[in-house]
Amino acid sequence: MSDDTHKGTTRRGFLGTAAAAGGAVVGAATAARAAGPDPLITEVQDWASSFGDPVDATPYGMPIRFESHVVRRNVEWLTESPVSSINFTPIHALEGTITPQGCAFERHHSGAIELSKADYRLMINGLVDKPLVFTYEDLMRFPRASTTAFCECAANGGMEWGGAQLEGCQFTQGMIHNMEYIGVPLRLLLEEAGVQPEGTWIYVEGADASSNGRSIPMEKAMDDVLVAFYANGEALRKEHGYPVRLVVPGWEGNMWVKWLRRVGVYHAAVESREETSKYTDLMADGTARKWTWVMDAKSVITSPSPQAPIRHGKGPLVITGLAWSGHGKIARVDVSLDGGVNWQEARLTGDVKSKALTRFHLDIDWDGSEMILQSRAIDETGYVQPTKDELREIRGLNNVYHNNGIQTWWVREDGEVENVEVG
Amino acid sequence: MSDDTHKGTTRRGFLGTAAAAGGAVVGAATAARAAGPDPLITEVQDWASSFGDPVDATPYGMPIRFESHVVRRNVEWLTESPVSSINFTPIHALEGTITPQGCAFERHHSGAIELSKADYRLMINGLVDKPLVFTYEDLMRFPRASTTAFCECAANGGMEWGGAQLEGCQFTQGMIHNMEYIGVPLRLLLEEAGVQPEGTWIYVEGADASSNGRSIPMEKAMDDVLVAFYANGEALRKEHGYPVRLVVPGWEGNMWVKWLRRVGVYHAAVESREETSKYTDLMADGTARKWTWVMDAKSVITSPSPQAPIRHGKGPLVITGLAWSGHGKIARVDVSLDGGVNWQEARLTGDVKSKALTRFHLDIDWDGSEMILQSRAIDETGYVQPTKDELREIRGLNNVYHNNGIQTWWVREDGEVENVEVG
Repeated sequence: MSDDTHKGTTRRGFLGTAAAAGGAVVGAATAARAAGPDPLITEVQDWASSFGDPVDATPYGMPIRFESHVVRRNVEWLTESPVSSINFTPIHALEGTITPQGCAFERHHSGAIELSKADYRLMINGLVDKPLVFTYEDLMRFPRASTTAFCECAANGGMEWGGAQLEGCQFTQGMIHNMEYIGVPLRLLLEEAGVQPEGTWIYVEGADASSNGRSIPMEKAMDDVLVAFYANGEALRKEHGYPVRLVVPGWEGNMWVKWLRRVGVYHAAVESREETSKYTDLMADGTARKWTWVMDAKSVITSPSPQAPIRHGKGPLVITGLAWSGHGKIARVDVSLDGGVNWQEARLTGDVKSKALTRFHLDIDWDGSEMILQSRAIDETGYVQPTKDELREIRGLNNVYHNNGIQTWWVREDGEVENVEVG
Repeated sequence: MSDDTHKGTTRRGFLGTAAAAGGAVVGAATAARAAGPDPLITEVQDWASSFGDPVDATPYGMPIRFESHVVRRNVEWLTESPVSSINFTPIHALEGTITPQGCAFERHHSGAIELSKADYRLMINGLVDKPLVFTYEDLMRFPRASTTAFCECAANGGMEWGGAQLEGCQFTQGMIHNMEYIGVPLRLLLEEAGVQPEGTWIYVEGADASSNGRSIPMEKAMDDVLVAFYANGEALRKEHGYPVRLVVPGWEGNMWVKWLRRVGVYHAAVESREETSKYTDLMADGTARKWTWVMDAKSVITSPSPQAPIRHGKGPLVITGLAWSGHGKIARVDVSLDGGVNWQEARLTGDVKSKALTRFHLDIDWDGSEMILQSRAIDETGYVQPTKDELREIRGLNNVYHNNGIQTWWVREDGEVENVEVG
């Protein structure tokens, strides 16, 4: 995880011992006890000999300068214009399950707009008894709910359809984030307006110039969709839709409309641009799969990965990654060191929540030989994350969306990691 | 929660209707349906007519400028020097349970020091079979665990012992934050060094000039204490102890040593400055309670509160706050509108985790008359948060630590809120 250069002179005995133990998988905790007294015990951490920064030197704390590489990044050639583009979460350098807003990927179709709470309005209209326009303060008077959910762009991993193209876990799989949201259940606002019996769909649009309109079946709208104000405790950042965005747990990120402006109630889907020419899955025969809303179970090893190589040589190694499913909870994650021939079950670390990122770990004793690392997620419905080839067999090669195929990293003997494809 | 001025011309019908319903507590969702067609329905949110910001305009996203008041703040007269001081989380403006690192309170005794991962060392010595010094990279090779925990300064609310002194929920109760941590269980590092039978205490100290040393019984050290690298997904911020701090769930924040430098194993407590002349509770008879590590169950209403007055007049009102216990999970939170005469049970919103902040909500229909707001937490052990007077009766008036007494806010008819004391 660290880009710091390791100081060879201070490598501890326990790591050398573990490495000497050879290929057997042993825990770091038991590996070191055989080592003798350490001649380097005198090299301890110096105490600071002067004061550090006072409190409130900055009004809002930023990451320390040593972590300046842990930022979201874009890929310039990927889109024609930076105002209709995307950047990527540095998932190779993060741990746990929460994604800080400051480095969480963002996608917008016409730039991130600035909208004050005082100016904000949300309209509910169409097939309702009483069309309504809410101010921000109106929304704050409704009962609130909480949900922690992953938001994944439908195109996450899309560059991998035709074979590995981008180096780095951040760029191949970083169109995802996971936050704790607080807001008003959309159901309460729809009930306030009074949905008429023929109102079976909603159409949601943003206040940005693109509007990014999407249709959502009423059943989902009445289920777990949130009109969210807060993410990870504080107000949404501008680029995440301040002051109000839609949270649509388990469904593709494009439907999580930012700067939410209107919820129209209709008797059918609108079939907008964003759900016909875009965000549909073009099959080999030229037809398109549409309404592919749910993000299927997926996982990725975040470290080691191309941006997070192994710098410490053989011995105890922490393999970690993320797993998620739009259908519910992750039930199990398996990890393979040999390209899918043998699998071992990883440990799920911390809370396992429905439709949210789950962290997994596997502790191994690396013998220093090359590894073909893969992970596969199994969700509570029993669905098993497929290989890329299994997906291609069904969907062909035209598609860029909904690639939840197994990601492969080639770990070389020198610890460097490359994005590769294994049949 | 918002400081924006409400535009009176766009107040919706549902709020007026709810207010007209009088003092009965009704949900916002049912209150508005009686209202007629709204003449203001044409005042909708304009679409943006130009592009917003491109992606990656900033490498690390910051809060939007409209939220510049949501920052941690200090109180200059509270401490002699800003390098041995504290600031406060803006809990009046946050929601949910996660505290972003950027606005999470921080306390340090000799300033926040800058320590790189490459330079970092952690020593374990004393009554161990094999003294060890770990580099940061060594620590990253041990199996990791996750915990979400509140960190509360023992002095949180301490200014309230002698009666209400500070206006603002942030200043009276804001010495608290709640994050998701990832790190190595301290137990694994102690086992690596081999604790000798007579080693019944550890002594932990930081690398800052103050060292801030504290003794912890071995039983706790071997239980749920974490040597943490990550908070809310990313590296610890400098002021939160980068690169490594101790996480001691449920125990007072002073023991969560930052810039962790050494864990010494001893046969007895060290009785350091920070656990004798400081961080002990001076009783009325001049004796001091010591080893008061656990933070007892507590709660506070964060909105409405002095910094978060009611601007929208009578009608539907969301009352929200935080509850926590160092002994386990929160079982129930009660809210009183009349200074503790009558109580109603609040809703616990989102996950209820052991030794972590729990969010509660109570939705009422405010009749516009004054309220004496209180909340009281009950934890899973059955412990009930006491009144301040109940605490004073037992502990006298000399103490500033471990004030978990019930906080009272006086809500005036104009919606302004004051910090008051109710016997």
